[in-house]
Amino acid sequence: MERISFDELHAEFKRILLKAGLTEDRADRCARLFAENTCDGVVSHGLNRFPGFVRSCHDGTVDIDVEPELVTRLGAIEQWDGKSGVGLLNAQFAMTRAVEIAKQSGIGCVGLKNTNHWMRAGSYGLLACEAGCIALCWTNTTALMPPWGSALKRIGNNPLTLAVPHKSGHVLLDMAMSQYSNGKLEVMRRRGERLTLAGGYDENGKLTTDPGAIITTRRALPIGYWKGSGLALVLDLLATIISGGDSTAVIRQRERESNVSQVFIAIDAESLAGAQIHEETVQQILNDYVDVPSEDEGEEVRYPGQGMLATRRDNMANGIRVDEELWQEVQQM
Amino acid sequence: MERISFDELHAEFKRILLKAGLTEDRADRCARLFAENTCDGVVSHGLNRFPGFVRSCHDGTVDIDVEPELVTRLGAIEQWDGKSGVGLLNAQFAMTRAVEIAKQSGIGCVGLKNTNHWMRAGSYGLLACEAGCIALCWTNTTALMPPWGSALKRIGNNPLTLAVPHKSGHVLLDMAMSQYSNGKLEVMRRRGERLTLAGGYDENGKLTTDPGAIITTRRALPIGYWKGSGLALVLDLLATIISGGDSTAVIRQRERESNVSQVFIAIDAESLAGAQIHEETVQQILNDYVDVPSEDEGEEVRYPGQGMLATRRDNMANGIRVDEELWQEVQQM
Repeated sequence: MERISFDELHAEFKRILLKAGLTEDRADRCARLFAENTCDGVVSHGLNRFPGFVRSCHDGTVDIDVEPELVTRLGAIEQWDGKSGVGLLNAQFAMTRAVEIAKQSGIGCVGLKNTNHWMRAGSYGLLACEAGCIALCWTNTTALMPPWGSALKRIGNNPLTLAVPHKSGHVLLDMAMSQYSNGKLEVMRRRGERLTLAGGYDENGKLTTDPGAIITTRRALPIGYWKGSGLALVLDLLATIISGGDSTAVIRQRERESNVSQVFIAIDAESLAGAQIHEETVQQILNDYVDVPSEDEGEEVRYPGQGMLATRRDNMANGIRVDEELWQEVQQM
Repeated sequence: MERISFDELHAEFKRILLKAGLTEDRADRCARLFAENTCDGVVSHGLNRFPGFVRSCHDGTVDIDVEPELVTRLGAIEQWDGKSGVGLLNAQFAMTRAVEIAKQSGIGCVGLKNTNHWMRAGSYGLLACEAGCIALCWTNTTALMPPWGSALKRIGNNPLTLAVPHKSGHVLLDMAMSQYSNGKLEVMRRRGERLTLAGGYDENGKLTTDPGAIITTRRALPIGYWKGSGLALVLDLLATIISGGDSTAVIRQRERESNVSQVFIAIDAESLAGAQIHEETVQQILNDYVDVPSEDEGEEVRYPGQGMLATRRDNMANGIRVDEELWQEVQQM
């Protein structure tokens, strides 16, 4: 693993995005999101995904020039058309807009249709937290899992982010509805390792920790079995209706995932009654959660976002860890 | 199992609540919620819980006379103080208020502090759906589960409801963060049956399907392992901050659960762009979900709320199934 600075990573991403035709400001913002995802340890939606994203800018999936267009404004909720534009920039715009509405109305909601992969759900939660807002956002995706009880892929893994602002490090829950991501299953199979816990079904319909078996059956496990399956369905329903966009049922008919639907909700925590004690309240809740004896030797109990923050601090101090081969590939783009 | 009519059940609950000191209107509404929960098959938060609720009206946990009081109004979000009142009526009020705001502003949010057990989260989702609104609501609770990686109870099971209006039957996801409820574990142990899937840890720290072992270790499994644990934590953070109320860390210090914190969000689906095709869109998504071959012989794949709807129709047509002994006990109250 090579370690490079945030600025170098950002500059390299930006150079390539400018070459791909993005304008100065858009290339800069998009490169920053990819660099932040890598720096925070979410490499699967940072460096690893960058070459694929650049390809999507060339193959017509993503229209690199368009800006979102307002469809409906109803008090504290707005519906926007992402016009098949850059998913990261559309999502950044939508959460920024939700925050603006929240600063006016306490809560703001933006439904965004016809957008593309936003990479990391957490990016937009953190954006809202920086503005002192609580955030809830989620996206639908193409079909990646079977509904509970079936073996046919029909539901998305529909990542959901809930974020709570906190000065010593925002609390960030960023979770897909599958127990393990496809990327994780691939990595574990390549290494010849087993999952810690059952992640799907084998060919005999039994729960298994063998990542290869799950990749073969394509029956990845939703979190909480029937509960995650139902949650994935309802998040799709909500994203589709609130954005007025396409559902997984429609998206899955396409060869490549495109024109997904997303929801962004921001709540202005700073203007709520009790705001002056939020920092202490959040800290008290987090302390109560982590101050427990661990059952796994050498592993501490951690709250969502805590591990990411440690990774970010280490990467900012010592350079961001990148896969050398991939980094060379990107430098040649 | 005896079968009695909805009206008889409602009348009996109402008689007892009037005797407990609730006013005519409040006793009527409260009795209706208990009867509906029973009729929908959620007996654990209907008939089974009714005697306990009546006790809480007598022992000072619940103040039967108070109405919620406005703390803050900020555009489309409001904070209310439940004043230790009747949880069901406070929650009904709060979701009704969220719907009223949504009809004005597209989206409405109410944070409710110092309230008591609302029995069934789904009740308030359905209330919003009847008004053409999407609903998201959740509550914190006293500590019922250990954070992932620990064996000490520190987090609530924090039920979450997401509801989508649909003329042929609202879609209703109503889920706690534990894989199986304590009630379910107790019932299975008494019957000497095993859970279908692992529901917690045994004394050797191994996942188990033995309900008795889980009751002994008190280590029930959160849905999706670390994901449900994190989600329970963040739902508590959100409920605490948005309501300005008490967190699980505070509530768990009390001998009995009281003064919990809740969030109610309503979105007026009827005023969104695309409203004229919502029925078809929802139906298309649901069809895509259920029209799959089942892997479990004799079991069809069902969407959240589908089973409940079938139970309700059967109970309304043929009488609501009640445990005879419990029903006699209630009739003597």
